[in-house]
Amino acid sequence: MTYKEKLTAIRKQMHADNVQAYLIPSADPHMSEYLPKHYNCIPFTSGFRGSAGTLVITQDFAGLWTDSRYFEQAAEQLDGSGFELVKLKVQHMPEYIQWLGETLPHGSVVATDEKLLSILSGDLLTQTLSDKGISLTHKDYLNPIWQDRPPLPTDAAFLIEEQHIGQSVSSKLKEIRAALTKYQADFHLVSSLDDMAWLFNIRGKDVNYNPVVLSFALINQDYAKLFINPNKLTEAEKETLLKNGVEVFPYEAIENALAHLPENSSILIDPKRNCYAYLKVLPATVKVIKETNPSTVLKAVKNETELANTRTAMVKDGVALTRFFKWISENIGKIKITELSAAAKLRSYRAEQNGFVGDSFTTISAYKAHGALPHYSASTESDSELQPESLFLVDSGGQYFYGTTDITRTISLGTNTEEECMDYTLVLKGMIDGSKLRFPKGTCGYQIDAITRKPIWEQGINYGHGTGHGVGYFLNVHEGPQVFNPTNNPVAIELGMITSIEPGIYRPGKHGIRIENLVNTVSNTTTEFGEFYAFEALTLAAINTRIVKKTLLEQSQIQWLNDYNAMVFEKLSPFLTTEENNWLKKETQAI
Amino acid sequence: MTYKEKLTAIRKQMHADNVQAYLIPSADPHMSEYLPKHYNCIPFTSGFRGSAGTLVITQDFAGLWTDSRYFEQAAEQLDGSGFELVKLKVQHMPEYIQWLGETLPHGSVVATDEKLLSILSGDLLTQTLSDKGISLTHKDYLNPIWQDRPPLPTDAAFLIEEQHIGQSVSSKLKEIRAALTKYQADFHLVSSLDDMAWLFNIRGKDVNYNPVVLSFALINQDYAKLFINPNKLTEAEKETLLKNGVEVFPYEAIENALAHLPENSSILIDPKRNCYAYLKVLPATVKVIKETNPSTVLKAVKNETELANTRTAMVKDGVALTRFFKWISENIGKIKITELSAAAKLRSYRAEQNGFVGDSFTTISAYKAHGALPHYSASTESDSELQPESLFLVDSGGQYFYGTTDITRTISLGTNTEEECMDYTLVLKGMIDGSKLRFPKGTCGYQIDAITRKPIWEQGINYGHGTGHGVGYFLNVHEGPQVFNPTNNPVAIELGMITSIEPGIYRPGKHGIRIENLVNTVSNTTTEFGEFYAFEALTLAAINTRIVKKTLLEQSQIQWLNDYNAMVFEKLSPFLTTEENNWLKKETQAI
Repeated sequence: MTYKEKLTAIRKQMHADNVQAYLIPSADPHMSEYLPKHYNCIPFTSGFRGSAGTLVITQDFAGLWTDSRYFEQAAEQLDGSGFELVKLKVQHMPEYIQWLGETLPHGSVVATDEKLLSILSGDLLTQTLSDKGISLTHKDYLNPIWQDRPPLPTDAAFLIEEQHIGQSVSSKLKEIRAALTKYQADFHLVSSLDDMAWLFNIRGKDVNYNPVVLSFALINQDYAKLFINPNKLTEAEKETLLKNGVEVFPYEAIENALAHLPENSSILIDPKRNCYAYLKVLPATVKVIKETNPSTVLKAVKNETELANTRTAMVKDGVALTRFFKWISENIGKIKITELSAAAKLRSYRAEQNGFVGDSFTTISAYKAHGALPHYSASTESDSELQPESLFLVDSGGQYFYGTTDITRTISLGTNTEEECMDYTLVLKGMIDGSKLRFPKGTCGYQIDAITRKPIWEQGINYGHGTGHGVGYFLNVHEGPQVFNPTNNPVAIELGMITSIEPGIYRPGKHGIRIENLVNTVSNTTTEFGEFYAFEALTLAAINTRIVKKTLLEQSQIQWLNDYNAMVFEKLSPFLTTEENNWLKKETQAI
Repeated sequence: MTYKEKLTAIRKQMHADNVQAYLIPSADPHMSEYLPKHYNCIPFTSGFRGSAGTLVITQDFAGLWTDSRYFEQAAEQLDGSGFELVKLKVQHMPEYIQWLGETLPHGSVVATDEKLLSILSGDLLTQTLSDKGISLTHKDYLNPIWQDRPPLPTDAAFLIEEQHIGQSVSSKLKEIRAALTKYQADFHLVSSLDDMAWLFNIRGKDVNYNPVVLSFALINQDYAKLFINPNKLTEAEKETLLKNGVEVFPYEAIENALAHLPENSSILIDPKRNCYAYLKVLPATVKVIKETNPSTVLKAVKNETELANTRTAMVKDGVALTRFFKWISENIGKIKITELSAAAKLRSYRAEQNGFVGDSFTTISAYKAHGALPHYSASTESDSELQPESLFLVDSGGQYFYGTTDITRTISLGTNTEEECMDYTLVLKGMIDGSKLRFPKGTCGYQIDAITRKPIWEQGINYGHGTGHGVGYFLNVHEGPQVFNPTNNPVAIELGMITSIEPGIYRPGKHGIRIENLVNTVSNTTTEFGEFYAFEALTLAAINTRIVKKTLLEQSQIQWLNDYNAMVFEKLSPFLTTEENNWLKKETQAI
């Protein structure tokens, strides 16, 4: 079927049901960042393969709402599909809702697969459209026309033993149950796969990059029901779960379980991380308590085992990165290196490391002007050859059985402009100021963000992304609740949280610079003014100093930089060859 | 009547009305910071004279809820009054509401003078207590027993001519009416006296420190009604107002005007800045739109005339401060100087200045350990004599016909401890970093607060108050909406806003240090990354450098300090005698 034929087939079903608009969000029933192939609904329907967007189909219009990152790609991929590109004014805003309200006549019906809609979006859609006399209904018009729709993944999952993860499932369930008591909730539904992975010490490979398993949980004071394809677990693993008080049920049985909750009971559901369809199957008398998943904060605070293991992962990752940057520096201008071949080389060095599972996200391997696109992803069409000049930005990460990494380095490949050296030094100043900060307990991410930006602001420069995000433990590389950015998100930074610090400067058409470490929050000192925290740098990879303008650094910044590079050498050298050590010794020399 | 007799008289009325609890907030119908004597209800009833508190009276309990600033004072002043001190856990929190909910039986009635309750508090009280079957009713039990209750002030008000304030009343009304259109509101009630003063270019002396006039306004697209004691204005002034489309009505007539708003009309009311009583007199069909007063933001952004005049006020204030600090430095250890006598001396220097109206708040004149109390107010009992050692903190401000000032300096009186010098240098570093900051348009106060605190945090030190507050134009010294503090208040700093920058360090029993300037927000540069703002230092008074530890300052901080002190000399010297100039020259010498 062509895209136009699919559109016709969808409109035929809409007509038969007297539905005026059909929505296709980019989501799965777990509100995941990365989707199983089964849920690649937007590529199937329109050909668009970007990671964010919403399709809206009426009888006389079909459009894709997406943000500026994808304008070029969407225009190309939608060509001839029957879909038009609708440019979002603000990223992540559901601007299609307003469009529906203005376009559809009173009394219209909007249909969507409500399993692909978050409760938050469903509530917003219902409230906004009901004011205009428009109603929402559940329909899946894709399944009937999607002949070779990929099935849900059947890969095996696996459990991580308590001694490798620091906390038993039964102990985690105890914490969740304490939260249920606090919220006066009888039940708790968990759909988000990172919360599932944390809660049940379970991992898998159902989607790209995030080592998660399609599953749901229903928890009360007496039981914890895990809904998962039972073939994904061995009998021994089911036995282990049972010992922790967890019973296994088929994945699809969640819907029925929710539909049969006791009358007048109450359930805690995170409206951002659960689908609207499952809210609607609940009996009408069940009281819904909409709060953030209690596991969100529990998961963000890493225990001693997770931290110790992450430090091990960082050594492995640092060894791979050292070999990679040595290879680049020794071969640039001698052999052909492209953005894609460099990324492949980096992956091969990581793959040599014991415990490596895969990349934690798509590597950003960006030469020169490509570096100015913060979300650049090299393709065979865009793939640039690296030359012995300008800057090369590499933002990459690995999933290891004992931790998740995320690191950006920007290196000089030869001659550099004055502006490149200046910008590099400014980004480094910001990154150092964030990294060496001492701050009182209770400090929020927006305060750390401001302090990191200050040296960059001083030169009339700024960057459009946040300074940092939370990172999971052998789990999602983007994890809440903490974030370092300018919005007024009032989440305090807690001990044991792992967060990135990654300021940048981007000059379109010229170059992009970003330097990123992951840091752990540690207790620093307690004075008459209270307890103060600081950051422990977890990432171990030399920060290139060749184009640093030393006179622009404060003494304390030089000190931090030299100390950091010395620590990198000290921690990595036992795992490197003499030749590698010679290279790293020079790379980490004090300035 | 003794306090106990008053309590008995109140309880008698409660019993007659079958009222179980009576509340007395510290407020007036304008939700003012400083109250007319007529509304000194808490001192009348209990003897407590602190500026913040709530009395709660039941048949078997009478208590004052107040915060830690007043624990000592309250314990003393309430002695023998029949009232007990209830210590607030969190400043400004209405913790008495929870107490009422837990203490009163189902079906109880709580009474209060609803003119002294903000809409926000009234709504909160009603919602929280209705869950427990408790209702709220309006009663004034003080008036019947308050024989010599002071009448409302009758002092004359006065209008400021347009050329002295930069914007006509009719032009301001036009902006308000545009906001009414935006909010789809037919009417707008203004009760807050700073908004009234700004809107009608009117000033007076009805309360201490804030040059405001008791009045209300009711505005729609056709008229602007000013409710004020008509004797406060001359016929010529009424004529001027009329030319700007403003009709004058008696102060008390506001209640009737609100009660007779057209059926099904709508009214914009700021729930923080209007009283609950006037919400309740509205006809039931009137739709209430609860939003911040549009004048709040308009008022915060000063026009060119206001800024030019404020700069003039700063020169006058700077001359007075120079004379004051010269006098201190030349007389310390020679004549008896106390905290109170110093404050009086400073006031006398200000009073010599043309256009001086009065202090803009109670001067904090705090020697040595008294400086560690951020809200210290010297009394005849506490009044310390200044010695030629340690530090003297003076936080003071003036109201001039052409601007409001607020400045803190901390000076060395002789020998100083190492800790005093260190702390002074750290506070100065923070104050300089805030003052010399360049930041992108859209930056909020919490970002500026964090950057100001960084040098102080670095030493494991912090301060418990905000870094800065908005300041009015010949108006309230505390003015919103902008604020520099750690809370996540998402108000962007706009061009023309006047804000204080005043970090501090307080060591109980030892010393307190605070250094404060007022700054204006100015455009600094526009680059490919957008527009950047910076601060113009408005305050003109030498920053003492005698105990600065220069090695702890960065070069850019030294530069700012020397530039600032040189500017102070340059701008003040034309108005000083040769002898004064000689002193100031030394005081402002570059380090």
